Amino acid sequence: MSTEQRHLLVIGIGAGDPDHLTLGAVRAIRRTDVFFLIGKGPAKSSLTDFRRSVIDEHTDGPYRVVELDDPPRDRSAAGREAYTAAVHDWRTRRADACERLIRDELAPGQSGAFLVWGDPALYDGTLSMLDEIAARGTVGFDVEVVPGISSVSALAARHRTSLNQVGRPVHITPARRLAELFPTGEGDAVGDGAGEGTGSGGGDRQGDGDVVVMLDAHESFTRIEGDDVWIYWGAYIGTPDELLVSGRLADVADRIRQVRAEARARHGWIMDTYLLRRTGRTEDGRA
Amino acid sequence: MSTEQRHLLVIGIGAGDPDHLTLGAVRAIRRTDVFFLIGKGPAKSSLTDFRRSVIDEHTDGPYRVVELDDPPRDRSAAGREAYTAAVHDWRTRRADACERLIRDELAPGQSGAFLVWGDPALYDGTLSMLDEIAARGTVGFDVEVVPGISSVSALAARHRTSLNQVGRPVHITPARRLAELFPTGEGDAVGDGAGEGTGSGGGDRQGDGDVVVMLDAHESFTRIEGDDVWIYWGAYIGTPDELLVSGRLADVADRIRQVRAEARARHGWIMDTYLLRRTGRTEDGRA
Repeated sequence: MSTEQRHLLVIGIGAGDPDHLTLGAVRAIRRTDVFFLIGKGPAKSSLTDFRRSVIDEHTDGPYRVVELDDPPRDRSAAGREAYTAAVHDWRTRRADACERLIRDELAPGQSGAFLVWGDPALYDGTLSMLDEIAARGTVGFDVEVVPGISSVSALAARHRTSLNQVGRPVHITPARRLAELFPTGEGDAVGDGAGEGTGSGGGDRQGDGDVVVMLDAHESFTRIEGDDVWIYWGAYIGTPDELLVSGRLADVADRIRQVRAEARARHGWIMDTYLLRRTGRTEDGRA
Repeated sequence: MSTEQRHLLVIGIGAGDPDHLTLGAVRAIRRTDVFFLIGKGPAKSSLTDFRRSVIDEHTDGPYRVVELDDPPRDRSAAGREAYTAAVHDWRTRRADACERLIRDELAPGQSGAFLVWGDPALYDGTLSMLDEIAARGTVGFDVEVVPGISSVSALAARHRTSLNQVGRPVHITPARRLAELFPTGEGDAVGDGAGEGTGSGGGDRQGDGDVVVMLDAHESFTRIEGDDVWIYWGAYIGTPDELLVSGRLADVADRIRQVRAEARARHGWIMDTYLLRRTGRTEDGRA
């Protein structure tokens, strides 16, 4: 590797608990010359404060911090194609800004780091942004990814439950795809689990997989029916503000809505995640 | 909390790289009085060696290690119900053995730990086993879970890719459910992504989600068709024996089979994981 190559570290820092950092993340932070902090919406100051505290705690040499305001994003887009187009447009503008930072703020041979909330592999745009910048060919760099504890893993840990049931799949999805993955009603199982696909769209045809919902601005869980559905809900997981509610969805949905509304009003933003599981039971008890 | 309560720690130690350990896992290991090491099949000595090296590196006080041989498991069961029954039977016998260990080897007020490969939430039986033991009411304990880096996160990090595409779901599944979740053929999209469920089984009806396959003993990826399917495959991820292959499935499937067979013969066991993604492209390039 030429010493003239810029080195970019994409470091998962976990879901809000400083103890989520891995030893590898700590080592990567210590190797970093320049930290790129990208602000993100109304939660920006909390997230940036957390990143700065992580940097302060684990660095032991000289470093620089470069902050970047996230470009505004059109959140009015309706429908999958418009939504995807709005996200792509926002990402292009963010890539433009980051390309300039990498070129102007990071010298060849230096290491720059992006501290990513959760795990860089799950619903985070940093890696695809770097792919886009690399494809432009305007600035050379290599990329190293340090995996992190996702909010999904943290949610399951705090509820002391698994993400999957024995031999079954788990689906992680943005809220807008929930209805497909967790159908309403009891529904007969279709297929025997060993059959071939149909060529007409994918699917857990038995409908027995657990579903984790991310990025839900519209409380989509309130549209799920079934007396045997359990929910494991959490917000600000791993932080001192952590909120957890679990139970039979029909029993706790109203409580989650109330807790969620109060927390959102108090903080000005909310990051919540939840697991839905069809248990086949309508009585209380551990899943 | 009464000091007479036994405390059980279920600690995710990551997917094979010592740097995957979180700061929280290290702290939990330091609080542990007794480590319960459960052997697992042909990979047992490698996994136990890794756990022992983690304990050696991070403990700084007195501790004990109690080893338990995994009971044998009927792997001949065919079909989902027989498979589930075989797993449940095996888990009951394992729970019997662990119940005895918790009662006999851990004093009230002490902390016992299970060091779980990857993340305790993903395709690991420790938490459901402890639920089963707790339900028997024969020995009292509380449980604390420390999330870990799963082989899924580690796979994505090593390939420097995401687990999901923008606005789309990702499915994590045992190999036997792959055909449902990643249908063969090009297949028209069904549904607009905003519709309601059908009540006849769940499903990513657009078939556009990424799929991660775990526990694949039968190279199920060789049954997937489509010129636009990319695979990101890895084995022994995070260890010095790590193997990675990625590319268009049609181009690299034979190479993966060959690499996999050679590695399995060399080690006597293999733990591999892969991500399948339908890209809509048939040319090479980054996904």
